[in-house]
Amino acid sequence: MTNTDLDAVVAAVRERIDPDEAERRALADAAKDLESRVHDALADLPVDADVLQVGSTARGTWLSGDRDIDLFVRFPDDLAREELEDYGLTVGHAVLPDGHEEYAEHPYVKGDYEGFDVDLVPCYDVPTAPEIRSAVDRTPFHNAYLTERLDDALAAEVRVFKRFLKGIGAYGSDLRTEGFSGYLAELLVLEYGGFEALLRAAADWKPPVEFDPEDHGTRTFSDPLVVIDPTDPERNVAAVCSAENVARLQHYARSLLSDPREDLFFLPDPPALDADGVRGHLERRGTTPVAIVFDAPDLVDDQLYPQLRKSLDGVADGLDRRGFDVFRKETFADDDAVLFLELSVAERPRVERHEGPPVHVRQHADGFYDAYADGDDDYGPFLDGDRFVVEREREFTSATAFLTSDALFDVALGKHVESTVREDGYEVLVGDDVVSLADAFGAEFGRYFDPRP
Amino acid sequence: MTNTDLDAVVAAVRERIDPDEAERRALADAAKDLESRVHDALADLPVDADVLQVGSTARGTWLSGDRDIDLFVRFPDDLAREELEDYGLTVGHAVLPDGHEEYAEHPYVKGDYEGFDVDLVPCYDVPTAPEIRSAVDRTPFHNAYLTERLDDALAAEVRVFKRFLKGIGAYGSDLRTEGFSGYLAELLVLEYGGFEALLRAAADWKPPVEFDPEDHGTRTFSDPLVVIDPTDPERNVAAVCSAENVARLQHYARSLLSDPREDLFFLPDPPALDADGVRGHLERRGTTPVAIVFDAPDLVDDQLYPQLRKSLDGVADGLDRRGFDVFRKETFADDDAVLFLELSVAERPRVERHEGPPVHVRQHADGFYDAYADGDDDYGPFLDGDRFVVEREREFTSATAFLTSDALFDVALGKHVESTVREDGYEVLVGDDVVSLADAFGAEFGRYFDPRP
Repeated sequence: MTNTDLDAVVAAVRERIDPDEAERRALADAAKDLESRVHDALADLPVDADVLQVGSTARGTWLSGDRDIDLFVRFPDDLAREELEDYGLTVGHAVLPDGHEEYAEHPYVKGDYEGFDVDLVPCYDVPTAPEIRSAVDRTPFHNAYLTERLDDALAAEVRVFKRFLKGIGAYGSDLRTEGFSGYLAELLVLEYGGFEALLRAAADWKPPVEFDPEDHGTRTFSDPLVVIDPTDPERNVAAVCSAENVARLQHYARSLLSDPREDLFFLPDPPALDADGVRGHLERRGTTPVAIVFDAPDLVDDQLYPQLRKSLDGVADGLDRRGFDVFRKETFADDDAVLFLELSVAERPRVERHEGPPVHVRQHADGFYDAYADGDDDYGPFLDGDRFVVEREREFTSATAFLTSDALFDVALGKHVESTVREDGYEVLVGDDVVSLADAFGAEFGRYFDPRP
Repeated sequence: MTNTDLDAVVAAVRERIDPDEAERRALADAAKDLESRVHDALADLPVDADVLQVGSTARGTWLSGDRDIDLFVRFPDDLAREELEDYGLTVGHAVLPDGHEEYAEHPYVKGDYEGFDVDLVPCYDVPTAPEIRSAVDRTPFHNAYLTERLDDALAAEVRVFKRFLKGIGAYGSDLRTEGFSGYLAELLVLEYGGFEALLRAAADWKPPVEFDPEDHGTRTFSDPLVVIDPTDPERNVAAVCSAENVARLQHYARSLLSDPREDLFFLPDPPALDADGVRGHLERRGTTPVAIVFDAPDLVDDQLYPQLRKSLDGVADGLDRRGFDVFRKETFADDDAVLFLELSVAERPRVERHEGPPVHVRQHADGFYDAYADGDDDYGPFLDGDRFVVEREREFTSATAFLTSDALFDVALGKHVESTVREDGYEVLVGDDVVSLADAFGAEFGRYFDPRP
């Protein structure tokens, strides 16, 4: 392996992702126009405010083809929240007449301007990041910190790293991905001074890995990757980044270094599977697939996926505890939400073993013995070593019986998942019936049955 | 509960087990005759030796109907082992002309004399128990210790306790039973001064329970019940007594105290089961029974049962480790030996999960990834948290496939069991086929399917 190989690969990637001069100019012009329109709109309001372009397109770290312009309107921090929201929307609608309102921490206006996707977000102008009144107030501090430190050369390194994270599927701090945010990616490139140095370091990380660029951290974190926010000593920028995505970066960093190749930056998804494709895998695997299907709760992804995963874990735990061993599991969502589980064991005998206390713990032992001694349906109590044991009737002898019973509601389900399945019901698919899900979730099954790091 | 109830029960038991005067006299007369015949035989030998009646019939602690007379011939401890054996057999055959030779630590003669089962055992006359040259040399010391301390009243208490241990199935220090020896029973009655006091204490034991009647113990033991031999500070008289039999005594002691009744002293075995009876239980339980059947190795029970149990544990462990969950198991032996296992899970999918190292352990992770990356039959490697995982083809998808494969010989089998099954082969019965075993093992199945403390 020579650096030349990696350099050549990076150069080829940059050919594909570096915005050209025309793209830069079009974006700068649009941003300038938008800022000027914001100033005009602010002039009509009885408040002092300024406007600030933030995000990757403000810092030259966007990838060619990204069309996002983020403008933050900063209002005085003594303004009432209702007024901030009111003024923010007024400015937003004035600047983006065809825009619509969305809601993050407060409502804001999103709309198209000359082919760009524009977010016009109101925030408070606070003196320092730890004094923020809402999460979006932090963004201008991040922007200022990075703008000061990222020159053109480092911005290019950031773009390459972001493309690499996208290629391997580790980019995005949304709660579906639990990966690396753009801000985190930029801080890591700053930390190591470039893409290759970052890769070489990440390949050898021994999590937990901790960085504190401003050396001002005041808390400890249990996350696998900790990057103390340079603008806020109490915050881990990598808090949502899962152990799996840290491992993913490590694995693909090694892979790229040992065999530099462009395709890692643009890994395609595995092909979608149709019903026959799903059936083929299930037959080859010999597992028993079960799926709980219900209307997807009407939530944003950052709420939906954590709830679906919690529900999936709860159902898996409920099955495992009843002896139905879960082999692998995944959750999918579109119009329908699916908790999909492959079982190694889908049937159990009619009896289950129930261990009592050691005989020498006299009070408990007497209670246990008396409770079961007259049960004609039970085997025992008898002794196994120093303990009483009975073999009693098992409540559920099949996974399906459990999944279609009220006991399903005893497992830990996500709050809105629980209300949805309680109110609107749910369907349980077992065995070959699950292949019908390939119509809506062929791509998801494609990834499930061709799993990669 | 009043003591009167228990006293009445004990009195009724004693009616059944106390030898009457005629029985005592017949036994004493026979023993006296035998001793005199031993003296006659010894007179012809060029050695000084004496004879000693030992065992329960020597101490008045036998139960009515027992017909065992144990006579030990004590030779000087400087005698060569071959001479001891030679002289011992000479005396044995002279005293019991119709007797036959058996083998414990050395050969001895066993035979009938006027309806009594007589053992004529040669041993060394050593100064103290710790100086014994063979295990049987200890017996005269035990006999002397107990004879000195057991008066008629205590001997009666011993008989009641021994009958109780027999009734509940905890009597016998053979390695099939792993229960209480007669000597241990006698020491415990001595310790507590009587049957009822012993029961009340045992009901509250918190194992490990330790006694050292002569306060001379020099070792520590990890057994649940420790009674330092009054004649040997290094020996635990209760070493073979299993935790289960200690718990059994505790349970039935409580049961007898709270509800005094004679039947506990004479608990009958559950009825034997025929093929239909076994089938009925298996259907009710819904387990998958499997049995490994082979010619019983030609061993005494004290060797056979430990080997069968070791083999049973080994097979169960081999099944469990391959995902075939064992629900309960037992071993039976007669002409055939049987390892019988009921499975909760008898089938597994074609794939198995195989966890690799955490990705951050770079060298191992690389090795794991490289080993599986090109396996077309495998799913993965992929990530679960910070680890690599693959789903690979499972070696055995059914318990039967494992049990009929050479892999069976990789589990820990008893030495003679292994050679027997290797040389003479074995049969594997699965499902309904196991009911044919009821012909030979109906009583064993009766106990298995009606398990009691």
